[in-house]
Amino acid sequence: MKTTDKFLYGGDYNPEQWLDRPEVLKQDLELMKKAKINTVTLDTFSWATIEPREGEYNFEWLDKIFDDIYRIGGHVILATPSGGRPQWMSQKYPEVNQVDEYGRRHTHGFRQNHCYSSPIYRQKTRQINTILAKRYGKHPALIMWHVSNELGGQCFCKLCQDNWHQWLQKKYHTLDNLNQAWYLKVWSGLYSDWSQVLPPNPLGETKVHGMDLDWKRFVTDMTMDFYENEAQPLKEITPNIPITTNFMAEGLDKGDYYPITGLDYSRFAKKVDVVSWDSYPAWHNDYETLADTAMKSAYTHDCFYSLKHQPFLIMESTPSCINSQQYNKAKKPGMNILSSLQQIAHGSDSTLYFQIRQAQGNSEKFHGGVIGHDGSSKNRVYQEVAQYGQKLDSIAEIKGAIKHPKVGIFYDWESNWAFNRGGAFGRPTRLGIQTLQKHYSIFWGQDIACEIISGDDDFSKYDLIVAPILYMAKDKAVDKLTEFVKAGGTLISSYFTGMVDEYDRVVLGGFPTKLRTLFGINTKEIDTLYPKQHGHVEFNQRSYETKDYNQVIEVTTAKALAKYQDDFYQGTPAVVSNDLGSGKTYYLATRLGDDFLKEFYRPIINKLHLVNDFITKPIYEVSCQTREKNGVKYHFLMNFSEEEQEVLTSRESINVEDGSTVGKRIVLGKYGTLVVKEN
Amino acid sequence: MKTTDKFLYGGDYNPEQWLDRPEVLKQDLELMKKAKINTVTLDTFSWATIEPREGEYNFEWLDKIFDDIYRIGGHVILATPSGGRPQWMSQKYPEVNQVDEYGRRHTHGFRQNHCYSSPIYRQKTRQINTILAKRYGKHPALIMWHVSNELGGQCFCKLCQDNWHQWLQKKYHTLDNLNQAWYLKVWSGLYSDWSQVLPPNPLGETKVHGMDLDWKRFVTDMTMDFYENEAQPLKEITPNIPITTNFMAEGLDKGDYYPITGLDYSRFAKKVDVVSWDSYPAWHNDYETLADTAMKSAYTHDCFYSLKHQPFLIMESTPSCINSQQYNKAKKPGMNILSSLQQIAHGSDSTLYFQIRQAQGNSEKFHGGVIGHDGSSKNRVYQEVAQYGQKLDSIAEIKGAIKHPKVGIFYDWESNWAFNRGGAFGRPTRLGIQTLQKHYSIFWGQDIACEIISGDDDFSKYDLIVAPILYMAKDKAVDKLTEFVKAGGTLISSYFTGMVDEYDRVVLGGFPTKLRTLFGINTKEIDTLYPKQHGHVEFNQRSYETKDYNQVIEVTTAKALAKYQDDFYQGTPAVVSNDLGSGKTYYLATRLGDDFLKEFYRPIINKLHLVNDFITKPIYEVSCQTREKNGVKYHFLMNFSEEEQEVLTSRESINVEDGSTVGKRIVLGKYGTLVVKEN
Amino acid sequence: MKTTDKFLYGGDYNPEQWLDRPEVLKQDLELMKKAKINTVTLDTFSWATIEPREGEYNFEWLDKIFDDIYRIGGHVILATPSGGRPQWMSQKYPEVNQVDEYGRRHTHGFRQNHCYSSPIYRQKTRQINTILAKRYGKHPALIMWHVSNELGGQCFCKLCQDNWHQWLQKKYHTLDNLNQAWYLKVWSGLYSDWSQVLPPNPLGETKVHGMDLDWKRFVTDMTMDFYENEAQPLKEITPNIPITTNFMAEGLDKGDYYPITGLDYSRFAKKVDVVSWDSYPAWHNDYETLADTAMKSAYTHDCFYSLKHQPFLIMESTPSCINSQQYNKAKKPGMNILSSLQQIAHGSDSTLYFQIRQAQGNSEKFHGGVIGHDGSSKNRVYQEVAQYGQKLDSIAEIKGAIKHPKVGIFYDWESNWAFNRGGAFGRPTRLGIQTLQKHYSIFWGQDIACEIISGDDDFSKYDLIVAPILYMAKDKAVDKLTEFVKAGGTLISSYFTGMVDEYDRVVLGGFPTKLRTLFGINTKEIDTLYPKQHGHVEFNQRSYETKDYNQVIEVTTAKALAKYQDDFYQGTPAVVSNDLGSGKTYYLATRLGDDFLKEFYRPIINKLHLVNDFITKPIYEVSCQTREKNGVKYHFLMNFSEEEQEVLTSRESINVEDGSTVGKRIVLGKYGTLVVKEN
Repeated sequence: MKTTDKFLYGGDYNPEQWLDRPEVLKQDLELMKKAKINTVTLDTFSWATIEPREGEYNFEWLDKIFDDIYRIGGHVILATPSGGRPQWMSQKYPEVNQVDEYGRRHTHGFRQNHCYSSPIYRQKTRQINTILAKRYGKHPALIMWHVSNELGGQCFCKLCQDNWHQWLQKKYHTLDNLNQAWYLKVWSGLYSDWSQVLPPNPLGETKVHGMDLDWKRFVTDMTMDFYENEAQPLKEITPNIPITTNFMAEGLDKGDYYPITGLDYSRFAKKVDVVSWDSYPAWHNDYETLADTAMKSAYTHDCFYSLKHQPFLIMESTPSCINSQQYNKAKKPGMNILSSLQQIAHGSDSTLYFQIRQAQGNSEKFHGGVIGHDGSSKNRVYQEVAQYGQKLDSIAEIKGAIKHPKVGIFYDWESNWAFNRGGAFGRPTRLGIQTLQKHYSIFWGQDIACEIISGDDDFSKYDLIVAPILYMAKDKAVDKLTEFVKAGGTLISSYFTGMVDEYDRVVLGGFPTKLRTLFGINTKEIDTLYPKQHGHVEFNQRSYETKDYNQVIEVTTAKALAKYQDDFYQGTPAVVSNDLGSGKTYYLATRLGDDFLKEFYRPIINKLHLVNDFITKPIYEVSCQTREKNGVKYHFLMNFSEEEQEVLTSRESINVEDGSTVGKRIVLGKYGTLVVKEN
Repeated sequence: MKTTDKFLYGGDYNPEQWLDRPEVLKQDLELMKKAKINTVTLDTFSWATIEPREGEYNFEWLDKIFDDIYRIGGHVILATPSGGRPQWMSQKYPEVNQVDEYGRRHTHGFRQNHCYSSPIYRQKTRQINTILAKRYGKHPALIMWHVSNELGGQCFCKLCQDNWHQWLQKKYHTLDNLNQAWYLKVWSGLYSDWSQVLPPNPLGETKVHGMDLDWKRFVTDMTMDFYENEAQPLKEITPNIPITTNFMAEGLDKGDYYPITGLDYSRFAKKVDVVSWDSYPAWHNDYETLADTAMKSAYTHDCFYSLKHQPFLIMESTPSCINSQQYNKAKKPGMNILSSLQQIAHGSDSTLYFQIRQAQGNSEKFHGGVIGHDGSSKNRVYQEVAQYGQKLDSIAEIKGAIKHPKVGIFYDWESNWAFNRGGAFGRPTRLGIQTLQKHYSIFWGQDIACEIISGDDDFSKYDLIVAPILYMAKDKAVDKLTEFVKAGGTLISSYFTGMVDEYDRVVLGGFPTKLRTLFGINTKEIDTLYPKQHGHVEFNQRSYETKDYNQVIEVTTAKALAKYQDDFYQGTPAVVSNDLGSGKTYYLATRLGDDFLKEFYRPIINKLHLVNDFITKPIYEVSCQTREKNGVKYHFLMNFSEEEQEVLTSRESINVEDGSTVGKRIVLGKYGTLVVKEN
Repeated sequence: MKTTDKFLYGGDYNPEQWLDRPEVLKQDLELMKKAKINTVTLDTFSWATIEPREGEYNFEWLDKIFDDIYRIGGHVILATPSGGRPQWMSQKYPEVNQVDEYGRRHTHGFRQNHCYSSPIYRQKTRQINTILAKRYGKHPALIMWHVSNELGGQCFCKLCQDNWHQWLQKKYHTLDNLNQAWYLKVWSGLYSDWSQVLPPNPLGETKVHGMDLDWKRFVTDMTMDFYENEAQPLKEITPNIPITTNFMAEGLDKGDYYPITGLDYSRFAKKVDVVSWDSYPAWHNDYETLADTAMKSAYTHDCFYSLKHQPFLIMESTPSCINSQQYNKAKKPGMNILSSLQQIAHGSDSTLYFQIRQAQGNSEKFHGGVIGHDGSSKNRVYQEVAQYGQKLDSIAEIKGAIKHPKVGIFYDWESNWAFNRGGAFGRPTRLGIQTLQKHYSIFWGQDIACEIISGDDDFSKYDLIVAPILYMAKDKAVDKLTEFVKAGGTLISSYFTGMVDEYDRVVLGGFPTKLRTLFGINTKEIDTLYPKQHGHVEFNQRSYETKDYNQVIEVTTAKALAKYQDDFYQGTPAVVSNDLGSGKTYYLATRLGDDFLKEFYRPIINKLHLVNDFITKPIYEVSCQTREKNGVKYHFLMNFSEEEQEVLTSRESINVEDGSTVGKRIVLGKYGTLVVKEN
């Protein structure tokens, strides 16, 4: 594979919008160079420009851009243009357009909304990719392929329904198996012919949990299949150019932030050469502290790092505002450097922006750009981008460094799908990922590195695995977790664990036998609390409030650490620990707050020697993340607060930017950062 | 009719889900027997099992279940399976599927969503019912037919439109009459041809009040007609087996609870042999006291009792959680006995659960079941079900006992439809049924029995009729109420009475003459209050707050009891009484709170000797309901609070469960119950 | 043109609803006469009555009404009936019905929902208008045509799409121009054929800002074209009868009130002979003071006056409740007179109600009427209507009087469309018109007359122009404003000014050069605040809170009046003034509250001698509005509070109603009014 010694710095660049203004393109090159930008993503949405009419191609402008970028020492990530097909294609081949859940074929509009099954669209994308690969595959600026853009969505057309049938037939072989798996004797829903099986849709079936689960799996498979169809000519023609596609996060509309849940990225990641993603946290909002925003951002970075346990790329981020939010807040001075450096700290080998130059019109015209509408290098955004470019340059030695976390946060995409589906318990209080983040924040707040892992990972690397709400406890995962514990590992789980099988059917016979052994308990029932209702547990002579769910359990081999203080289960165990083999498990039967989790984890962290040995006294607002390369440890210190912070370290270190010695007392200003190393 | 001497105890049973696990079916029988369960509802959703392909039948399993149930001394309520038609039928005969208000034919999915007009569906249901009646009609276990399930919904297909035209033609004969009735000169809406008349729908007409009202009447008629089509073969083949269908309640999404308003059950009740319904109050919620939940539940029980003035059946209830709510709260220990006994106390001759065994999969998998997913008899839910089974057994002598309320709460389904329709006054503050419940709660809180009556009932049984917001004051009802008052009755009504006729057209000439005579007032105008606006009245030297509506009235023969204290109608009458014949009427011109209603009703209750003569000092949280049989009075004492309560009675009584003597001071623990009798 | 010497008083009259009750029609005439009603609007929704079947006409009843009205000395405004086409037409010619944005052809229902393109509908409306004009054009009662009713809405049918294409082709000539104007290189959206261009719609394109803007312009054009098609035969046959159509206001669902934004009335007004509109403020609500409701009502009146800078007509208002609101509050005693007189005070030459007699049925049956359902002249509403009729009669000399405001509030319909579109900054905090009203309220509160002007107006009439948030700063308007300032005018603008061009594309190069000169500043960036975030500025030694938007600017020739006190722009200018030629400009870079605006405007008002010279000490709750005619000034004094208010004037005046002398101290009771004049 081709490489470059520096962090990739730059972003999406859309020269096709400015072809009639060559002075703009010229200025772009100058300003990019000045800001130490070394990488641009081209062609993401230029299909209509490179193939304005079917079979008529127009590449001269792109050739020139390639050469220009190369001339200033830059690299190109070349996107395949399928995210935005041309109007003529939508018109001539309507089948390329998505059909929605009501069966309505959409016309052209927006982006990323093609049918994933359409043979014509698959052929057209392979064809344009082949042309691109042949034309630019050997260009010295090309360093990576970026297939399509922010893949997602669903289609309900006849072609997709046919694929759905084939997918189901391959999985279940017989309708009897399907009827059984989806438990269709309920409401007389048994299929007697494959043609009766439609996708879940509001004019037909919306209630069958097993169907929904399989549909989500199918959608991930179709999306990956579409990706592979696009990747195939690229792999053939340019076998040495790595291929990626940009993954996404979501949740801001609810004040959350985590990797999107619509696609199973734990499987999709296996298809890409490098994980890349689009990072858009809502900095400076009014509903949480800056440090909490940083914690959620950190969780999401760690999740994308963990997908392949190797450095990832930030494919998009903003130098200033995000156009799509309810409130589109410009980053304050210092925040772009802080938040961009956080990407690197958690394992990114790039900072790429959407976008190099702000669009003049249309729906994203006010999204932040390195070069603003004023085209000025005096623009605050540009100046901070350039300042950060300088910084990235000076820490280039860190590129490729990896991480060695001892804590794994267990997250299963499919389990989360099942858990969030439908009725029972509290609909608004499922909060599966938010609960993972509550646990994660304990470690992040103490500068203890975590990975976000799933069932296929090697557990032996970790000392502690945190797996709350493991709703769908797949056999293989349970066996691996048991083995992990027996071999000396520590495992933490909670209420809502081990409830359904892989078809979203309830495990019969109560708490699964293997889990009984693992946690030394039997579960009895879950008391769901309304929002204004609360419970309490006693733990270490103190009382802590519980909410949402109080599960009633009984211990077999486990030992109660905390007990309920209210209701009919008063005095029964709420938090327990169990010894198994050389290891230990903990089970939290109820939802507890930060105050409890901090106290609960304190002895565990100490006993497992998880404490960060560089930072003497961790501060929640100041994050320290560590990457390692060639035996050198690189620590990223970041102040996610508006106050000056004093950080005490156990050892002196070296400032990576200038090689100077850094003492054991470090003062970080508002939004301040420092990158140090230890040899 | 066949009978049984015991309360029916049991519920929906779906053995078709477990046919491949005979050990489960065997365990079911054992656990049912152990819990004193004597009745199961079979076949509710097993059409796809008994007729897996068109014309292919499979009854052996059902034969066996029938025999097995009979062998343990049990009874079967046999459901007709039309609530869940098989997939093959939806596919082969698309006309059986509903068409929605946008004209979209739905495909198969969910349940209870067939077209009510479809000749094919009517033929198919008659056919399967005939087969069932012939096969099981003489089975000794069969005690009742349960037609379909939770009938409801609407269809907008061409066949239903044709029926709509016929219905309208039968009612109005000419288009002129229809145009007049619906007042279609507004906005130039006059029909000139019957084919122009469509159902109300969002792509056509949604504004015509008279049309909406008739459409609702038509929907009730179609639903009853569908019911009768199903019942016809059953009546012919098994004339001695009573037939019912399960009615429903609604409102939980708004924190309310009352019989559904979509169907006019006051008419539908005449079609069934026994009223049965599905009772799912939201016990232990966080928005009201447990006693308030009990009050609304009581109101709803009384409404269903009153439909035929005879004992009803609870066809469904939950032993634990309700799957479909926003928060699905398990009943706390004691609550299932308390809430189930409340059913009996108010006139039910059964406690039936949905369901005997929890489904393993699909959308209701976590809804409570007598036998849980753990299949264990040690399960708390099962144990309390069994404990209640024992209790029901020991009070079996009460079965069939009736009630003799002296208070009638007047509720007209059609008036409520018109009242809730469309614009004017305050849309969010109509609250018709909630207002009825406010009045009802005064009586319930003092253990004074009520019925919920409508225009067809015999008023002479009552001493007091409470009829607030009698918006559509039908002539017949007004005449009967007048007669009732003249003969010595007491009548209470309010603002919003007598405003429209049976076509939802405003009564011209102001307050109707008959009502002027009845209440001794003339109405002038209604001041609608915004939520933050309040008024006040002075009553018995105290000031009470009013809200939502202040009607301005003038007295003719009436006497003012309370007067407004604010605004341009300050000093004018707000509450008045009027003597008429040997009786008396009261008119509340404004919406007043509990504090007022308690004071207002106190002298009326005393004067009419409505005071409960068994309970010395009623407590709101403790309910006493009475049933009578063979001259014996059975009192059900129920503590709807979490505190111990002391109940004082005027007389000693006998504990029905064990025959022991009960003193005049009774202490009920948390959720405690006691059933006593007086000979 | 025909005229009448009195204010038009009356309203919509629908005798077609009562043709079968001649005694009602007779009573109507008597009650109208008694209330001094002199004008009725006929035929608004009677097409189904005058043409019950295609080509069958029935005018006898209308002839009689015309004669009857004339006999009591009344005038007729004759509406063309297109707002409510007959059912037979919708059925026979489905193309007359609108197609919605999902492509669904609606059937008959509601009103005002025809296709604006349909040749058949255009022919049918011309035809019925021709018949009406020929039959009634010479009737002595006829004084005005009222084309259709509350024109609005959109249609997406094939015919409208064709018109859309023609409209675009006429504007852009080539697709290249269109692609450029809409900036379609974003997301590869370039059109290669006109047939690809559809209207914005949820099954196709919803994101293209330029498309949305042009679609809104097109909708206004289509609506005007439809109006002109209807007006054409009227103009031909009755050239001396003026033509109008009733405009509307909106916003009540959000607690706002202003002219509707869906149609560009600044252009539409040029097509009508007289501006008329339907005025429905939400008096007596619970979310603002009565005076604030009056202020918004005043703003809206002034906007409609300003459209032609001449007296307008109130075509609809309510004597009591508005049926369509969430809470439909009857006007309290005195409020109808107060609010109706406010219409006159701001330049209306009529008070017309919807409606003379309340409909008996259908969806607006409870909307207020001069004659209520009781048909009684003792009805409070009727009595106050009659009292106001008397008052209007006694001030008839004011009819036709005009206004001479020195303050212009600049409002550009198209700029507001662009500003409200789509993403970026704060979606919920755009609040463009609400910001105009904040400024307007400073003047209204001090009894300083304003007009609401737009780019085509003559600016030289004004001393002060207030133009905040001039988002789309069109070249012509900027040039005119510059000229205005240079000639001695004072101009006030704010953040969000000068951001986009006429295609909603961002102005490149930063703050436009002309605006830099005008305001003496350069803009740098906008800090968008979340709702819970606030800033502060220091102004005249006091601190004022800012919200929503803090724009960072730098001064060139301007002088800072206020500076930011927080954040990274602390100490930079927030409010500046700039001298240019003989005039002066002010720029408010941030959103400030009433407290600031009052202090800010005080010296400006003084310096420009804008102070009301009749009112000595203005009170916010008491409004004084002035009209002039033949050298006489007429002052309308109105107390928008429930308390008695003392108004001090600088001079004695004459009571217009009775000719008596009014001293310099005037006491107005609750809701009190007084009309005085100065010769």
